[in-house]
Amino acid sequence: MVKANKIGALSGIKVIDLTRVLSGPFCTMLLADMGAEVIKIEPPKGDNVRNQGDMVEGYSSYFAQFNRNKKSVILDLYKDSEKEILRSLLSDADVVVENFKAGVFDKMGFDFETLKSLNPKLISASVNGFGSKGEMSDRPAFDFIAQALSGFMSLNGTEESGPMRAAMPISDLVAGLYCAFGIVCALQSRVSTGNGQKVEASLTSGLISMMAYLSSESFVTGKAPNKSGNNHPILAPYGIFKTSDGEVAVAPASDKFCSIFLECTDLSYLLENELYRNNSSRMKNRDSLNVIVNERMILETSDYWIKKLNKAGCPAAKIVSLPEALNSQLIKDNGMVINSNGPEGRKIKMTGFPVKLSDTPSQLYRPPPLLGEHTKEILKTLKK
Amino acid sequence: MVKANKIGALSGIKVIDLTRVLSGPFCTMLLADMGAEVIKIEPPKGDNVRNQGDMVEGYSSYFAQFNRNKKSVILDLYKDSEKEILRSLLSDADVVVENFKAGVFDKMGFDFETLKSLNPKLISASVNGFGSKGEMSDRPAFDFIAQALSGFMSLNGTEESGPMRAAMPISDLVAGLYCAFGIVCALQSRVSTGNGQKVEASLTSGLISMMAYLSSESFVTGKAPNKSGNNHPILAPYGIFKTSDGEVAVAPASDKFCSIFLECTDLSYLLENELYRNNSSRMKNRDSLNVIVNERMILETSDYWIKKLNKAGCPAAKIVSLPEALNSQLIKDNGMVINSNGPEGRKIKMTGFPVKLSDTPSQLYRPPPLLGEHTKEILKTLKK
Repeated sequence: MVKANKIGALSGIKVIDLTRVLSGPFCTMLLADMGAEVIKIEPPKGDNVRNQGDMVEGYSSYFAQFNRNKKSVILDLYKDSEKEILRSLLSDADVVVENFKAGVFDKMGFDFETLKSLNPKLISASVNGFGSKGEMSDRPAFDFIAQALSGFMSLNGTEESGPMRAAMPISDLVAGLYCAFGIVCALQSRVSTGNGQKVEASLTSGLISMMAYLSSESFVTGKAPNKSGNNHPILAPYGIFKTSDGEVAVAPASDKFCSIFLECTDLSYLLENELYRNNSSRMKNRDSLNVIVNERMILETSDYWIKKLNKAGCPAAKIVSLPEALNSQLIKDNGMVINSNGPEGRKIKMTGFPVKLSDTPSQLYRPPPLLGEHTKEILKTLKK
Repeated sequence: MVKANKIGALSGIKVIDLTRVLSGPFCTMLLADMGAEVIKIEPPKGDNVRNQGDMVEGYSSYFAQFNRNKKSVILDLYKDSEKEILRSLLSDADVVVENFKAGVFDKMGFDFETLKSLNPKLISASVNGFGSKGEMSDRPAFDFIAQALSGFMSLNGTEESGPMRAAMPISDLVAGLYCAFGIVCALQSRVSTGNGQKVEASLTSGLISMMAYLSSESFVTGKAPNKSGNNHPILAPYGIFKTSDGEVAVAPASDKFCSIFLECTDLSYLLENELYRNNSSRMKNRDSLNVIVNERMILETSDYWIKKLNKAGCPAAKIVSLPEALNSQLIKDNGMVINSNGPEGRKIKMTGFPVKLSDTPSQLYRPPPLLGEHTKEILKTLKK
């Protein structure tokens, strides 16, 4: 499946992957997609996710989505002899990644001092719930809990709905992505220092960083931002408006774009009314403004408005469902849906590569692995 | 402010930063936080964000949050002579990052072939709305629009609320983080090839990747996932429950944790009732189950439940507001709130560094810059 003339940006980097379920496997998949050799160590029963989600001929599409481009090796780390094999693997690797609860990897006998004496070049990375310091560090973590504790959930939704989680496990994926970024930074540092180091990302800290814009406001005011639902906290008009055949999201992000929007909707005269003259007056009278805008927009189709607004330079789009998005021309143009060729001939659809590199593009080097598919191959290299 | 014995993971890497507002500045800040020298090129009027958000003694806290650790140089790129200065800067840099609309940087005379002839080692990175291919690529982009077009918004909220955006510009920040990851991967690739390349991330593709778990389901079923609000799509009990003094988020993520949860709430007897025997029966009867759980949990305080549940290993937490989160022990333990020492003596609070590296930790090397603060310093290096 590999094009012979293309190698990945991380070709030659060997990653030992002890992660399970979501945040960790997402991190190591990002490395594998960039061409690293990722050896996923699984217990004899396999990563739990192998039995979860919808199946394609008995193979979990959920597992496939997070474990393509990896090799699978079975090791029973409750046995000393197999722990010894892990030790051999680590002595020859560039990176190890784990997402155990903070402290567990240390207790297994792989604290950083031990790892350093085994292999000074090794980068040891951890994705965990709440960091490795403080009283929360050994508490049970889960995406929903990170969304609650970081303040993330409190910002979403409306006054009526109350706090609203994001439907996807966003804290897991953001933390996984941060960990991958930290690992590659540590690889770059190693080029000059020759030494590995510890890398850590956590679900809560990752989400905190994603709220940077609202936090900067909160630091100054000392207050919680208003829960603004689909309205913009500081701009009007902005939001979701009904059309004759659906809904359109409109985001005129400045006075200039507001003028364009009002012109496109034949509502420019509102700028002469002191209720709507500038953004701060429009914010005060947002409810009545939204009624006026809606009365106008419901007269035409969504396509009509999007075409007209986009042509004039104003951001506007349909709110599409996930299957509509995955089947859209936009997603095709960006190669964001791909097909695996396996395991065992299965065609499993998955989302594509979100970072594009021109010379070393991400690609499907290998299909998602069967449990233990590469145990023999990898153990053989150790005996050499 | 720099500890003499500590250098960043990306020390020695020079980044020319042409980005404005959000996605791009977040990307280059991540590089600057890792120790790269980031030279932010601003038009004579400065990045628009300098005039937005809440101010600390006249300096935008919003700008500070996204531009710490950078140097600021004013260049008027409408003037050929100043474009020539940019060319000099690029000939000696490792990375250039821009977040213009797709194609604009090319039209300014900096297409990749030109850049390559100027400096074959240069990595040229772009963060944009919809990628650089296809009919959408030159449409006006904005976070809200990316949330609508990627299917992201359609998944959040409840049937009653309809599609619900995330309150923070999540697509901008995810795309910025992906771009930073791609850039560091390209740096790693350059170690062996000696050559730079193009890197691209987009708002929509980044969000698509964040929905991987729900997409894998949708690929198999062909359907849109149910809008599950604060319920879990496939687990019950799970969600937000009222207590005597507030609300608690509870996430028992497997049968084992469900048993623990029911035991802690003295509701184990429900497992003998065929309506609630296993997860699939509980999912069918979720409404009545939630009533029973709520009747029990409302009898005690939030602290009581969280302590009891966490001790037994079950993930549970309060839903905190953003200021509560930013002032929490958890955030302190992780150093996720920091104080700048400047510009000009201002103390501006900002969120900290979400990736921890043990030997080359991120730190505040320099405060957020005044407009053009480093123009002289940088131009002097060119004349040498």
